[in-house]
Amino acid sequence: MSDADALPMVVPDPSLPTRVRIHEVGARDGLQNEKATLPTEMKARFIHRLADAGLTTIEATSFVHPKWVPQLADAEALFPLVDDLPVALPVLVPNERGLDRALALGARRVAVFASATESFAKANLNRTVDEALAMFDPVVTRARTEGGHVRGYLSMCFGDPWEGPVPIPQVVRVCRALLAMGCDELSLGDTIGVATPGHVQALLTALNEAGVPTSALGVHFHDTYGQALANTLTALRHGVTTVDASAGGLGGCPYAKSATGNLATEDLVWMLRGLGIDTGVDLGRLVATSEWMAAHLGRPSPSRTVRALGRTTQPHKEQ
Amino acid sequence: MSDADALPMVVPDPSLPTRVRIHEVGARDGLQNEKATLPTEMKARFIHRLADAGLTTIEATSFVHPKWVPQLADAEALFPLVDDLPVALPVLVPNERGLDRALALGARRVAVFASATESFAKANLNRTVDEALAMFDPVVTRARTEGGHVRGYLSMCFGDPWEGPVPIPQVVRVCRALLAMGCDELSLGDTIGVATPGHVQALLTALNEAGVPTSALGVHFHDTYGQALANTLTALRHGVTTVDASAGGLGGCPYAKSATGNLATEDLVWMLRGLGIDTGVDLGRLVATSEWMAAHLGRPSPSRTVRALGRTTQPHKEQ
Repeated sequence: MSDADALPMVVPDPSLPTRVRIHEVGARDGLQNEKATLPTEMKARFIHRLADAGLTTIEATSFVHPKWVPQLADAEALFPLVDDLPVALPVLVPNERGLDRALALGARRVAVFASATESFAKANLNRTVDEALAMFDPVVTRARTEGGHVRGYLSMCFGDPWEGPVPIPQVVRVCRALLAMGCDELSLGDTIGVATPGHVQALLTALNEAGVPTSALGVHFHDTYGQALANTLTALRHGVTTVDASAGGLGGCPYAKSATGNLATEDLVWMLRGLGIDTGVDLGRLVATSEWMAAHLGRPSPSRTVRALGRTTQPHKEQ
Repeated sequence: MSDADALPMVVPDPSLPTRVRIHEVGARDGLQNEKATLPTEMKARFIHRLADAGLTTIEATSFVHPKWVPQLADAEALFPLVDDLPVALPVLVPNERGLDRALALGARRVAVFASATESFAKANLNRTVDEALAMFDPVVTRARTEGGHVRGYLSMCFGDPWEGPVPIPQVVRVCRALLAMGCDELSLGDTIGVATPGHVQALLTALNEAGVPTSALGVHFHDTYGQALANTLTALRHGVTTVDASAGGLGGCPYAKSATGNLATEDLVWMLRGLGIDTGVDLGRLVATSEWMAAHLGRPSPSRTVRALGRTTQPHKEQ
């Protein structure tokens, strides 16, 4: 058996969903957190390769002001290079100005980015939580009037770097507000990676008890403390079927202190494949794509599966 | 909140055990798979620091022939430097000669190392599976006659690099044979890291159905594909309370192709702490110990938690 043939034995767990939709965030959340800014053509090629690997929801870029996220300043140039792909291509819009830009290009799937904590709302949006919600309200309304689909990201759902553990009722309140203004789905973010399985289960249960159906919820875990896949498994066991992941674990330098890397799509696909859960992803093609990207970024992918299955030696100098 | 204070919010899951015993393998399984051979005094210091961090079962060394594992050739010199610690200090013994050496030093907790597959038995022990079991039989009997406690490692319980997926009945047969000869506990090893949660659950269920109680089972997962913690969580949910882990993830170079790193003790402790499961481990002390070891080995720890909580910059040159 060669490495290329290595695949897990398929043993389903009847208590888990039979299908999972991966919301691929590498091209947006991943690249916006990398130091390097890539050429537009390479980003387009990345998105094409992700689609070719079988991913069906690929967050493409962000229409935030270039001053804040210079890595994605080329959204207007990039979107037309990928919008003919037969996949969903949501884009992040921070406000009405961003929505105008996205709509002008024909984008109809958009995402807003809210915070469960005051500290992060202040740091990231320079607003209170409620002021940020008020800013999103017309964005969500207009996007839906245009026939669009709106995802609401909610960051700091478990812990916050300034405030510590985040009370569950506080998260529930913001989730309900985002749904009330018209968001079609939410993505519950563990932005600093501190969540553990009991906490995940408790938040999902509290949301259900507050009237939020599991079908409206996606999960977005970070691997800062190595917990992302165990937390994802816990969410699947609760019935969640939308999981955010980033090809090759893009988005957090694996050597930085407090690396905030996203769950690697390949590590997720390995688990789902072993569980017999269909995702449509060709793992070999996805690994090859992440290796290609890692080579351009000049550092090894933090994804364990990419390292194990990769055909090339990862760029790294032993010391 | 500083990094040093970062701890997960404690949210227990009533379906999980309330206590877990960590079987720390860094000093044996970890160091025997590192390229560098450390001085005896440093190994002794490592074991002392692990005990000081609250670990209660620390596999100390191996009495395999130095020709096969030169990294642990100093077992006779090392054991007397640590045997006054108030913790369990099991040692690996490959055969009767190894047992003689261990008993002569006063060791009473020993472990044998069996294979679930013929290919690995041949490669690692130059015997068939049954020939290896026959070799262990007098070792187990004598160790128990001397009042000892015997752990039976079983490698390749899920997949084998030559044979691919390993049939569950084959694993069950060898487990039963090891228990029948007198092993007190088994450690089910996913030596190449391919297992996924449904497979873990299926093996544990099959073992129970064959009369093996969960209380006799420990699990030993590798993070080759990033699955170790999700698999461990699955085993805990099944009632397993003995989990093998390696401080700092020692034992697999994180940059090698097909890195076969052990589950990092720190990543496990983070999850267990969040779940309110008592282990007695001081995470800060353990992280400091793994950072000290990583500095000596000249490369960053593959443990995500060590990287996130570490006080020093990990040894790595950006490219």
